[in-house]
Amino acid sequence: MSQQGAARMEELVSLCARRGFVFPSSEIYGGINGFWDYGPLGVELKNNLKTFWWQRVVREREDVVGLDSSIIAHPRTWEASGHAEHFGDLMVDCRACKKRFRADQLDEAEPCPARQGTSEHDLTEPRSFNLMLETRIGASEDAAIRAWLRPETCQSIFTDVKRVREAARQKIPFGIAQVGKAFRNEINPRNFTFRSREFEQAELEFFVHPAEAERWFETWRDERLRFHREIGFAKSRLRTRPHAKQELAHYCRAALDVEFLFPFGWHEIEGIHQRGDWDLRRHTEYSGKDLAVTDEETKEHFLPMVVETSMGIDRTCLALLLNAWEEQPLPDGETRSVLHLHPRLAPVQVAVLPLAKKLAEPAGRLAQRLRRRFAVFYDEAGNIGRRYRRQDEIGTPFCVTWDFDSETDGKVTVRDRDSMAQERIAAQALPGWLVEKLEERP
Amino acid sequence: MSQQGAARMEELVSLCARRGFVFPSSEIYGGINGFWDYGPLGVELKNNLKTFWWQRVVREREDVVGLDSSIIAHPRTWEASGHAEHFGDLMVDCRACKKRFRADQLDEAEPCPARQGTSEHDLTEPRSFNLMLETRIGASEDAAIRAWLRPETCQSIFTDVKRVREAARQKIPFGIAQVGKAFRNEINPRNFTFRSREFEQAELEFFVHPAEAERWFETWRDERLRFHREIGFAKSRLRTRPHAKQELAHYCRAALDVEFLFPFGWHEIEGIHQRGDWDLRRHTEYSGKDLAVTDEETKEHFLPMVVETSMGIDRTCLALLLNAWEEQPLPDGETRSVLHLHPRLAPVQVAVLPLAKKLAEPAGRLAQRLRRRFAVFYDEAGNIGRRYRRQDEIGTPFCVTWDFDSETDGKVTVRDRDSMAQERIAAQALPGWLVEKLEERP
Repeated sequence: MSQQGAARMEELVSLCARRGFVFPSSEIYGGINGFWDYGPLGVELKNNLKTFWWQRVVREREDVVGLDSSIIAHPRTWEASGHAEHFGDLMVDCRACKKRFRADQLDEAEPCPARQGTSEHDLTEPRSFNLMLETRIGASEDAAIRAWLRPETCQSIFTDVKRVREAARQKIPFGIAQVGKAFRNEINPRNFTFRSREFEQAELEFFVHPAEAERWFETWRDERLRFHREIGFAKSRLRTRPHAKQELAHYCRAALDVEFLFPFGWHEIEGIHQRGDWDLRRHTEYSGKDLAVTDEETKEHFLPMVVETSMGIDRTCLALLLNAWEEQPLPDGETRSVLHLHPRLAPVQVAVLPLAKKLAEPAGRLAQRLRRRFAVFYDEAGNIGRRYRRQDEIGTPFCVTWDFDSETDGKVTVRDRDSMAQERIAAQALPGWLVEKLEERP
Repeated sequence: MSQQGAARMEELVSLCARRGFVFPSSEIYGGINGFWDYGPLGVELKNNLKTFWWQRVVREREDVVGLDSSIIAHPRTWEASGHAEHFGDLMVDCRACKKRFRADQLDEAEPCPARQGTSEHDLTEPRSFNLMLETRIGASEDAAIRAWLRPETCQSIFTDVKRVREAARQKIPFGIAQVGKAFRNEINPRNFTFRSREFEQAELEFFVHPAEAERWFETWRDERLRFHREIGFAKSRLRTRPHAKQELAHYCRAALDVEFLFPFGWHEIEGIHQRGDWDLRRHTEYSGKDLAVTDEETKEHFLPMVVETSMGIDRTCLALLLNAWEEQPLPDGETRSVLHLHPRLAPVQVAVLPLAKKLAEPAGRLAQRLRRRFAVFYDEAGNIGRRYRRQDEIGTPFCVTWDFDSETDGKVTVRDRDSMAQERIAAQALPGWLVEKLEERP
C-alpha cells in the first residue's frame, strides 16, 4: 500500500471509531484481532445495505426466496463441501520464533526475532491449516460432536434446497438468498474490516437447467453490477475481473470478481460464480438424498446447475465509506469532511436543528413526528455551521433547520449535503418531499 | 405437557416444515439437535419482528441507539461477566451408561439402559457444566487463544458503552440496543425452537442514574407490554411474572418475565431486569477502564444502573405462530387452517391471484407493480377456494383477485383473511389502500 493510501486508511479508521461507525471489538480489553463492532451509525449503514439487497434480490423477484439457516450445521455438510479436508492455506512454521506464515506470503515476513544477526527463519515444510473455527456440541464429553462455524453461508442453501423448493412451490429456474454471519480463522486479518475473522455475507444461489447456466451467469452479472451502481459506486473505482481458467476453484466453471479500488489496491467485494452441479452432486452423494429435479413437461431428471452471487457485507460497507468520503476544499478556504453516501444508505436520513436553543421545543416536536418514518438525528448543540459539518461527516443527506420565521410561516430551511444549497419548504410538506428525495435513483 | 398440547405442537411443527417457516437444520443429514433453519416464510416473519422492534426501540426514540457487535468477543469479557466461571448447570453423570443429566431434572431420567433389572443410574456427585460454546482463535497452536461464542448479546453493550455514548453524543439516561445471535450448549434442547442451542435475541440496555432505576424499570415494563400487545398477542395468553427475591440472579435487583401460554405451559418470551451497576462495575474492574459517567451540572461521578429488556426472537416467533393459529370451523361444515398474524408481521402481505389462467398476464403485471412496495405472492395454480386456503394457512392478510370484469372496470376483488369478506377496489387505488390497512393498529 502506498504511504498516501496507508494515511487515508488510518484517517478513515479514526473517523469510524470517533463517529461510531466501526471500532475494535472488546476495545476496553485491548481488542481481539480480526473482530469488529458496528456502532450506532455503522449498524444503520449495514442494515440499509442488507435491506436494499433483500429488496432487489428477494422481494422484487418472483423467482427468489429467502432463507436464514443456523451458523452451526451438521458436520457432514463440511465433509461434503470439501471444507473439512481442503479449506485452508499452506502454512510454514519457524522453529526458532514459533511464528506461522502463509507459504505464499513468505516474502512479506519480517526478520526472525529469535535468530538475530540473520534475517532468515528456520522454516518447516508447508502444511495445510484449516480455516474453519471448531467447537463441540452436546452435553457429555463422550457424546459431544465436533462441529464448525460455517465459513460461508451458501452450503445450507444447498442442503435445504429440496425442502425450500417444495415449500415455496418454486420451479427451476429459481434462487434462494441468505444474509448472515460466517467465520474464518484468518492467519493475518488486515485492512480494517476488509479481511476479518467474523464477517457477514449476502449470498444468492440460483438453480438453473444446465443448458441455461451460461445465460443466467450473464444475467446475474449484469443484475449485480446494476446494484453496485445503484448504491453509488463511482465507475472509476469499480471493475469486473473474470478469473482465468487456472485460477478457478475446483467447484467453479466460471467466475468473475466485482472489485473496488481500495487505498490498498483493487480487491473483491463480490464474487459471481458458475458452480456447475458440484454442490448438489456432493450433497446428494453424502446424504443419500436425491437433490435432482424433474421437468414436468419433458420428464427429464437432472441436477440443476448453480449460479452464485456472493457479496461481502463488511467489505462493501468499507468500500461505500471510502467511495463516499471526501475532504472537500470550500470557497472560504476551509475544508469539510463529507460522506456522499446514497440517501438510501445513509445512517441518518434527516437531521433536525433548531437555529437557537429557545426554538428547541417546536424543532423537537418536528423531529419526533419525522421519526415515525425516517432515521432522524436531533441536535441543538453548537453553532449551525458546526452542526452542518457534523452531519456532513456522517453523510446525512438533509439538514432541516427550524428558525425564528418557522414559527410564523410554517416553513423550514432544508440544506442539501452535497450541493450545500438551501431551500425553504413548508413543514407540512416535508415528509412527502423527503420520501421523494430519498427514493430517487442517482 | 398435556396430550392435547403435544398434539398441537406436533401439528405446528409439521405445518412449519411443510410451508417453509422453520425446519431442522441440515435435515438431509438427519438434523443436528438444537439447531433450526428458517425457510422463506420464517425468515420474513422473523425479519418483520426484528424490524418492528428496531422501529419502536431505536428509530422512534431519541434516547436509544443501535449496536452490532461481534459474536466472538475478547475472552476477558466472559471472565468479567462471570460466565466463564459460573454459567452452567449442575450435572451428574451415570458411571454405567455414561449419560449426563441435569441434577435438578433427575426425576425425568429414564431407567439406566446399562443396568437392566434396576431402574437406577450409578450417579456421580453433581458438578458444574459450562454452557458456553468454546473455540480457538489464531494461527499457530502456541499462539491460539481460547474464545467463546457469546451466550447473550448484552455483554458487548457494556464493554462498548463508553465508546458508543461518546460517539453518539448521548447522556444518561440513554440506551443501546442490539439484535443478534447467541449460543448455549443446552443439555436438552426441546419444545421446537423454544429452547435451542443457536438463537437470536433483541436486547436493550438502558443506562440510568441510580436514583431513577426503579422508575425506568416500570417505564420499560409498560413499554414492552405495549409492544407485545401491538404485535397481536391475546390478553388471555400473555402475563407478567415478577421474580421473587430468592429467584433473582446475582446481578439482578428486580426482574419480571413476560410469559406466553405455550401448549407446554407458561414460559418466558422476554425478561425485564434491573441489573444495578453489576456489569459496569465488573467490566471497570477487569479492564481498568473507568466506565462511570460525570453529571455535567452536579459534577457527580457515578456508575449508571442498567435496566435491561431481553426478548427471545425465536421464542416470540413461535409464540406468534401459536397465538395466530386457528383451526376454524366454517358454516359449510369444512374447517380452515388460518394464521391471524398481525398484517405488520405477515410474511406475505398480499397474494395476487388471477381467477383463470388466461388472466395471468394482467394479474402478473399487477403483482410485479405491487412488489416494489409490498411482500407479494403470485399464485395461478388450482381453484380460487384452494388458493385462498393456502394463503390463510400462511397468514396472508389480503388476497387480490383479478377477474374477467377487471379487464373492463379496472377493479379487483380484495378478500380479507380474517372476516373472509370481499370488496371491489380500483386497481389504481390498491397501493394506497394496502398501506393504510397494513399500518393500522389492532
